[in-house]
Amino acid sequence: MTKPKMRLGAFLQPTGQHLAAWRHPNAVADAGTNIGHYVELARIAERGLFDMIFIADRLGFLAEDKAILKHTVRNIAHFEPMTLLSALALQTSHIGLAATQTTSYMEPFNMARKFASLDHISGGRSAWNVVTSNYEDESLNFGREQHYSPAERYERAMEFVEIVTGLWDTWEDDAFPQDKESGVFFDDEKLHVLNHKGKHFSVKGPLNVARPPQGWPVIIQAGTSEPAKELSARFANVVFSAEQDIAAAKKFYADVKSRLAKYGRNEDEIKVMPGIMAVVGKTKADAQRKFDQLQDLVPPEVGLNLLSQTMQMDMSKYDVDAPMPEVDVTGKWSRAQMMLDLAKLNNWTVKDAYKSVSAGRGHWVVVGTASDIADQMELWFTEKAADGFNVMPPVFPGDLSEFVDLVIPELQSRGLFRTSYEGKTLRENLGVARPKHFAAS
Amino acid sequence: MTKPKMRLGAFLQPTGQHLAAWRHPNAVADAGTNIGHYVELARIAERGLFDMIFIADRLGFLAEDKAILKHTVRNIAHFEPMTLLSALALQTSHIGLAATQTTSYMEPFNMARKFASLDHISGGRSAWNVVTSNYEDESLNFGREQHYSPAERYERAMEFVEIVTGLWDTWEDDAFPQDKESGVFFDDEKLHVLNHKGKHFSVKGPLNVARPPQGWPVIIQAGTSEPAKELSARFANVVFSAEQDIAAAKKFYADVKSRLAKYGRNEDEIKVMPGIMAVVGKTKADAQRKFDQLQDLVPPEVGLNLLSQTMQMDMSKYDVDAPMPEVDVTGKWSRAQMMLDLAKLNNWTVKDAYKSVSAGRGHWVVVGTASDIADQMELWFTEKAADGFNVMPPVFPGDLSEFVDLVIPELQSRGLFRTSYEGKTLRENLGVARPKHFAAS
Ligand SMILES: Cc1cc2nc3c(=O)[nH]c(=O)nc-3n(C[C@H](O)[C@H](O)[C@H](O)COP(=O)(O)O)c2cc1C
Ligand SMILES: Cc1cc2nc3c(=O)[nH]c(=O)nc-3n(C[C@H](O)[C@H](O)[C@H](O)COP(=O)(O)O)c2cc1C
Repeated sequence: MTKPKMRLGAFLQPTGQHLAAWRHPNAVADAGTNIGHYVELARIAERGLFDMIFIADRLGFLAEDKAILKHTVRNIAHFEPMTLLSALALQTSHIGLAATQTTSYMEPFNMARKFASLDHISGGRSAWNVVTSNYEDESLNFGREQHYSPAERYERAMEFVEIVTGLWDTWEDDAFPQDKESGVFFDDEKLHVLNHKGKHFSVKGPLNVARPPQGWPVIIQAGTSEPAKELSARFANVVFSAEQDIAAAKKFYADVKSRLAKYGRNEDEIKVMPGIMAVVGKTKADAQRKFDQLQDLVPPEVGLNLLSQTMQMDMSKYDVDAPMPEVDVTGKWSRAQMMLDLAKLNNWTVKDAYKSVSAGRGHWVVVGTASDIADQMELWFTEKAADGFNVMPPVFPGDLSEFVDLVIPELQSRGLFRTSYEGKTLRENLGVARPKHFAAS
Repeated sequence: MTKPKMRLGAFLQPTGQHLAAWRHPNAVADAGTNIGHYVELARIAERGLFDMIFIADRLGFLAEDKAILKHTVRNIAHFEPMTLLSALALQTSHIGLAATQTTSYMEPFNMARKFASLDHISGGRSAWNVVTSNYEDESLNFGREQHYSPAERYERAMEFVEIVTGLWDTWEDDAFPQDKESGVFFDDEKLHVLNHKGKHFSVKGPLNVARPPQGWPVIIQAGTSEPAKELSARFANVVFSAEQDIAAAKKFYADVKSRLAKYGRNEDEIKVMPGIMAVVGKTKADAQRKFDQLQDLVPPEVGLNLLSQTMQMDMSKYDVDAPMPEVDVTGKWSRAQMMLDLAKLNNWTVKDAYKSVSAGRGHWVVVGTASDIADQMELWFTEKAADGFNVMPPVFPGDLSEFVDLVIPELQSRGLFRTSYEGKTLRENLGVARPKHFAAS
């Protein structure tokens, strides 16, 4: 029997995961609007047999902090994910294309349509990372003074995903005989109108795109609150998480898997993929030097600003050399509590905390040789803390190539990673079943 | 002095402009989800030095008529325009990429962002055909029982375009020094927050995409009512029209141009481009045979259904062999009145009317040799009925290649069309100026 394999995503922030990546001598500073750069990254990731590339998203930013933000590339100005991934679809042939899109400020009909379209364009390689917009200020770009409450966001998200998946099932797989002789373009018995009328949305349907090659594009979910986990249990094929500690990661993993039975789903049908920022060096010392060089490029006010965003409160008033304060994070997103836990566990000062968040931006950071990094990944994988990882190279494109050239062969030689793509669609490569159409026998 | 040149767009319905195109032996019946087909069309159009390819759009259809619609490809199931054009951007290098998107069921922030993104991806080749959704039933996919009234649609559209163009001006052209040494990624004095609060929308901004290469993507407008013409006069670079008669076309042309002065704009800044379905043959008889073959492939109920849509009322109750009835079209879109006028002018029966609309789907049809077609185009161009045309080949891909191989050289030899692209961006090729940033001196 062949060993189970881990899944890998490549997380494509414009210049790299590290907050100061853009200042690195090898970084492509104009990455955000440099399409050649993204084509190169997508091809390197495909050469490395990654399951997918992954694009985060945010609908704007607050310019109030522009005197600080001017030092960073973060969320400031870059391609929109759906247009970007559509452009990359025909520049690649196997890799999955995952875009983050929010259920809070978009319409389910338009959402269903663009992912179905990308799935057709790419021959079954699209994936939707369902988010609800955790940045309060996005609401201001959409006519709302206040963002929806967390509970309302997930209630809307659940209904939204129901509608989108329903619209993907508008057409049965064989609904289009396209018979020129008889003049029958589609079989009208294989067309299903949705007629959804719910608490938050009314969407009649049908969708004007044929059923996607994957049936449903792959669904990814990244939230970690209770309703987020229910959303995952019901719909997600991949859970993208931010775990920095193996014990917590194992707990989270078990929790996610335990919820599937309720929805008649099997444990294999969901892949838990925490982020990992791997800083690879020829030697341990080499890797550490590389990491320190990047950390020194973070201006303190930028680090503090990011920490404030992580904590969803102003952290700039605290002394950077004092211990991280035990502030009240009730009602904040789960990553605020996670940061407090980490700070306590490691006796961090405020500066340690902002350096930590600047490095991996809330994700697990591993610094070492290819073999060190493979050891850690193997441990998390075999210990059921992860089914795979979202790999976040600190600086593009160099650190992605290095991961592909050094870490991937190490994982392959241990039998932990594929040596060629298993299938044509993202679902086939991830090993998650193609959903049957509800009308199929 | 070189002669003024005409502009050409290639209008890409999936299988071709003719309603029965998909049934033609040479048609690609699965065109709607066949990306290779669209890549081929885009490349043929680029070989023909077309200014742009153009994608119409509609947010769904009513399935009530599915027993009739099953005979047609129209609006049923095909790629979404923004994902499609993004995929084509890197498969072409000069041709413009024009997508229809509605202001009625999308958000201005998202709209600004995706066109800015496509403009960066394509190096300045994107264009937005601003429509307000003339299909009443689209509202049902967006939580509204009733579509907005025509007046309200255009009021919203005007405000919507103000916001979108304002967001495109978030960043000055040189806002990004990206200086690794000093750590200054952007110049915060060159970032402009919109802070729009209007009757229909509140959008704070800033946009998180750098200013598009074209400053503003090209703006196209296709409505013909009073408020539509005002929208054009204020914002459009191209007016896409459906004129079938040179006298009416000249009147429309003069009307559009006469409105520009009010907004401090010059007559050259807007290009009027009516649609033309050209059926090209080696001889006139050859062309006519080709046309008749297509007309015979239209099932009567499908023709009547399309006529009903054009008239925005049920036309199936009338005798197909009786003269076209003089129904009341008050409150309907302008194309309903246009159809009545044509029917009266030509003494059409209901069948003649539905055959006319099935052929060109409301657009001007010219049947003849390459030289006949060039004659007509030249006449309209020199008589100031058009600055160019949206070319609508009846069946793809053959009729597009034929247009490129036969009609384009004829236009070139008369000095009416370019022999190589003038510039890199769509604005440069169309000859419409790049808007200065409002803060530029
Ligand atoms: C690893 C990870 C990645 C995320 N990426 C995005 C993103 O790109 N855009 C976004 O708006 N939210 C993103 N989120 C936010 C989540 O979708 C969610 O809104 C947030 O975690 C709050 O919900 P929760 O309390 O359930 O975690 C991400 C969250 C995590 C954990
Ligand atoms: C040539 C032409 C092409 C059009 N294409 C579209 C389209 O693709 N999608 C759409 O919703 N409306 C389309 N329209 C409709 C117009 O945008 C507009 O909504 C309609 O003409 C009604 O407005 P009016 O009365 O000002 O003409 C088109 C109109 C014309 C004349």
